[in-house]
Amino acid sequence: LVLISVTGETLESNFLHHKKEKLTHFRVYWHDIVTGQDSSSVSIMNPPKKYTGATGFGLMRMIDNPLTLTPKLSSKMVGRAQGFYAGTSKEEIGLLMAMNFAILDGKYNGSTITVLGRNSVFDKVREMPVIGGSGLFRFARGYVQASTHEFNLKTGNAIVEYNCYLLHY
Amino acid sequence: LVLISVTGETLESNFLHHKKEKLTHFRVYWHDIVTGQDSSSVSIMNPPKKYTGATGFGLMRMIDNPLTLTPKLSSKMVGRAQGFYAGTSKEEIGLLMAMNFAILDGKYNGSTITVLGRNSVFDKVREMPVIGGSGLFRFARGYVQASTHEFNLKTGNAIVEYNCYLLHY
Repeated sequence: LVLISVTGETLESNFLHHKKEKLTHFRVYWHDIVTGQDSSSVSIMNPPKKYTGATGFGLMRMIDNPLTLTPKLSSKMVGRAQGFYAGTSKEEIGLLMAMNFAILDGKYNGSTITVLGRNSVFDKVREMPVIGGSGLFRFARGYVQASTHEFNLKTGNAIVEYNCYLLHY
Repeated sequence: LVLISVTGETLESNFLHHKKEKLTHFRVYWHDIVTGQDSSSVSIMNPPKKYTGATGFGLMRMIDNPLTLTPKLSSKMVGRAQGFYAGTSKEEIGLLMAMNFAILDGKYNGSTITVLGRNSVFDKVREMPVIGGSGLFRFARGYVQASTHEFNLKTGNAIVEYNCYLLHY
């Protein structure tokens, strides 16, 4: 392959021929730990001063949030949600979530899915798209449905149930 | 066309009929130049003060990194990787990459692909999803495999080989 310019080569002309996409579901609990020594969600951007609304419009937090098997934080950690979320709503607490779920346990250990979508935290169920994946989730598309399991007003920590639905090969 | 509400119009009811997705591969070298006069990767966010771990959790860098044909920076520039990456791991140096590869040479000149995924920089090969594209890569899905070609401890500059696999029409 003599590289004169980035020509690209066609590996397969009909890649999807005879390939079937299956729909897979799994559930994890996402822990947003904002207080205490070992916080997993840290503020990296405050709302602009002139914006005094209580919706957090303009804030950003970086997260490396544990994903566990059951709602209890001490239950088996099956992955990590790594990325950030931003306050993107002036009217309510509405977030843009941009995060990779790195699965660290079981059949999908080593695979990831990428979520980028809108999260209106006070809705009962929030649907966000899965825009891609890696490993067993290569070429994946899908969606997650997030619903708050517990929100601790005192600490600000939250536990959110994420049901993940993936179309993949 | 009287616009009462965003109703949307069906342009084609069976768009994918008779369309085949081909799998294309190309390889580029991504240069993260952090030092010197003409740095292409600049810090826009430092980790929060209280976070003293050495994994860079909370940092963000904006990049306009050259993509070249061979590992040498002076080799033909075939595109630019424009976007940002964020330190999103507390345990290791793990990044969230969000970047557009603008191809500026050869058959795909003028087309782009968008990468958004998890990059554990010390893994030998890191797979990240291609979540979309434009031009010849419109409707594209795919993945990239990144492997570090060279990391200069003194300067912090890195050269990473990106093998890109695109499913597109």
